[in-house]
Amino acid sequence: MSKIPQRRTSRDIRSDSRLEVLHAVLSARETTRSAIAQATGLSAATVVTIVGELIDEGIIAETKVTIGRVGRPTATVGMNSDRGRVVGIDVAETYVRAVMFDTALNRIGYVEGARDEHVLDPDSIVDGIGAVLDRLLAQEDGARERVLGVGLSLPGLVQGPRGVAAVVVPNWEWRSVELDHLRERVGLPLVIDNPLKAMVAAELWLGRGRSASSMVTVNLGTGVGAGIVLEGTVLRGATNSAGEWGHSLLMLDGRLCRCGRRGCVEAYVGVPGIHQTLRELAPRHPLAEVELQADFITSLAKAAAGPDPDPAARDTVARTAYYLGSALADLVAVVNPEVVTLTGWTTWALGDQLVPEALERLRTESPAGAGGSVQLEVSTVGGNSVATGMAITALERFLVDAGLLTTRIPVAL
Amino acid sequence: MSKIPQRRTSRDIRSDSRLEVLHAVLSARETTRSAIAQATGLSAATVVTIVGELIDEGIIAETKVTIGRVGRPTATVGMNSDRGRVVGIDVAETYVRAVMFDTALNRIGYVEGARDEHVLDPDSIVDGIGAVLDRLLAQEDGARERVLGVGLSLPGLVQGPRGVAAVVVPNWEWRSVELDHLRERVGLPLVIDNPLKAMVAAELWLGRGRSASSMVTVNLGTGVGAGIVLEGTVLRGATNSAGEWGHSLLMLDGRLCRCGRRGCVEAYVGVPGIHQTLRELAPRHPLAEVELQADFITSLAKAAAGPDPDPAARDTVARTAYYLGSALADLVAVVNPEVVTLTGWTTWALGDQLVPEALERLRTESPAGAGGSVQLEVSTVGGNSVATGMAITALERFLVDAGLLTTRIPVAL
Ligand SMILES: [Zn+2]
Ligand SMILES: [Zn+2]
Repeated sequence: MSKIPQRRTSRDIRSDSRLEVLHAVLSARETTRSAIAQATGLSAATVVTIVGELIDEGIIAETKVTIGRVGRPTATVGMNSDRGRVVGIDVAETYVRAVMFDTALNRIGYVEGARDEHVLDPDSIVDGIGAVLDRLLAQEDGARERVLGVGLSLPGLVQGPRGVAAVVVPNWEWRSVELDHLRERVGLPLVIDNPLKAMVAAELWLGRGRSASSMVTVNLGTGVGAGIVLEGTVLRGATNSAGEWGHSLLMLDGRLCRCGRRGCVEAYVGVPGIHQTLRELAPRHPLAEVELQADFITSLAKAAAGPDPDPAARDTVARTAYYLGSALADLVAVVNPEVVTLTGWTTWALGDQLVPEALERLRTESPAGAGGSVQLEVSTVGGNSVATGMAITALERFLVDAGLLTTRIPVAL
Repeated sequence: MSKIPQRRTSRDIRSDSRLEVLHAVLSARETTRSAIAQATGLSAATVVTIVGELIDEGIIAETKVTIGRVGRPTATVGMNSDRGRVVGIDVAETYVRAVMFDTALNRIGYVEGARDEHVLDPDSIVDGIGAVLDRLLAQEDGARERVLGVGLSLPGLVQGPRGVAAVVVPNWEWRSVELDHLRERVGLPLVIDNPLKAMVAAELWLGRGRSASSMVTVNLGTGVGAGIVLEGTVLRGATNSAGEWGHSLLMLDGRLCRCGRRGCVEAYVGVPGIHQTLRELAPRHPLAEVELQADFITSLAKAAAGPDPDPAARDTVARTAYYLGSALADLVAVVNPEVVTLTGWTTWALGDQLVPEALERLRTESPAGAGGSVQLEVSTVGGNSVATGMAITALERFLVDAGLLTTRIPVAL
């Protein structure tokens, strides 16, 4: 591969500043130009210009004008929730979820459809996505006309430049022809990314990413993975594959992972891995019989909690925290982030029980310089952060098309 | 830690462009303004301006003027070797090496002094560094006056902003007071960084970093570590500790590492780890008795090479390639670089034997998207790349002080 020049133009800098202004407005809900200047470190003049551009585009709006005692009017601004709608869709193994947000990122609609994880032909999957989207749009009169963009999360990789991008979903055998089909069926500006990148976008706009300069967001579910943010930018890598920490080694020649390799982190801290840990510790425990992953994690969390926990459940959680802390130490050694946030449904069930012991292990196991100060937190971005993140990504893509942003653009179709 | 705004100004962009022009001139040795424009993708006007600035500062010079057939004179430019000298010093466990370069990065002097690795008091170490530097400067009349800067590699971490930086060398118990002492003894503009960052600087200016947009440089020696380059910039991390891949996990609860943790990569692919692998495979092998690390690696490489290799030596190399490929797969999974280069003295002895099998394992073990295209190469930067890299870092620091560069600045003292 030859070098792609990645110089930043002065337009990129304006783009960064606009993003900072947007984040400041979103964080504060209602704020003033001078408060934005203070929060972002931008000059008052720059803030005035950028706020003007964002008002012109209808992304933010003046909310009220106050006449102060010295007679100078102060206008407050906020996100303009009436500019339109953005939709985020999360296609997971057993469901398709679509969430509609207004342009102030308030959630205003939600639809979920079941998916048969054994049905993998493109037509069925595309139809399933289309049907859920149609039901969501039917919830509001004229919604289709108001939608600025749709962000779709698929469990794969989006590779290649705009126009010739291909979605590689290893388990589905998807090729680019299905992309055309999908684009046609959705019939709205569409952007596709994978769940990890979506979660990171949510964390950047609504969570810890607003205050940390470098951050890793770790998803804990059936699979596990990491989103890495350096200086406010998501690390994508040479082929948009960065962050596959779930398939980095915890134990050479260890447990067989579903990727076919042995000893991956995911084989220990993914839900099936946690289940295996319990079975190894207590083969005849009632929890070993729980087959549905979501039921297992919830039951495990309940059994391990409280002043008189079930010993096998408690040991399983402790062992999982040990694995998690050990594996996170590797990420911290390599990337040296300021903070690691945990997200995903294992986190919602077990995160508070995992964090203290995992953090202790993480700090012990990381090289001194990196581990001493690193923080480990449960993400504060609630709900389905994949759908939320994809809606945010659709909004970002709209801002790119409007000429307001040039950086952090995922591959758009 | 609160967020430090890291916006780039238009000055940073000029700085990036100047660096690209410098790299193009350095690569070509002798070139023209239009060839530079072609190589960098910068506009002809920008190249003319930047070349002018660099000529004004004496960093590059016009080498000759050719009158072409159409009568238009074409001037060639090259690095100006007469602008001054830069020195790189590598303080390792058993030696102190100092190398002097001219400003075209030609090596013009070299001195090595032995170090007793058990003598760790600051006064002795500072004196040892000073003595080697004095001997180097004595090789050329008036050298001290010509030196633009000295770059010193210490086996630790440099932390904190300019002026209040501290060098943390865990094994030496160094504190900031020793820094003052050091600065006084050297008596020249001084910049300090660790060996990994030095190797990356060398790779960026003189090796694979000139053509790859994302790259990992892995050092293989007594210790092992990685330098990560993303979009032409060295990843430093929240506390300047990024790249500690040597102390990421290969095997949970595995071999004891000298850092005190179990199962680190270094305990398998560092020289003492390779020695242990041989002892495990063939406890009574003559190579198991070789105590000096450098002798061991050289003898192992000799015994494992050729059409009729020693079986235990061959197995040890194969096992090491297996460990190395497995461990590199984790780096590739997380960072997704275009290329991984190997450097350090194990590489010079064993690299050509390690690369084919390590690459095969790396490609098998990496997630498909990242591993399919990644390259693994022995670095083409010869000699002592730590000393070379620190000399380059000293040159970068000089360019920063001259107002020509603003990015990629290591902590300067
Ligand atoms: Zn795996
Ligand atoms: Zn270690």
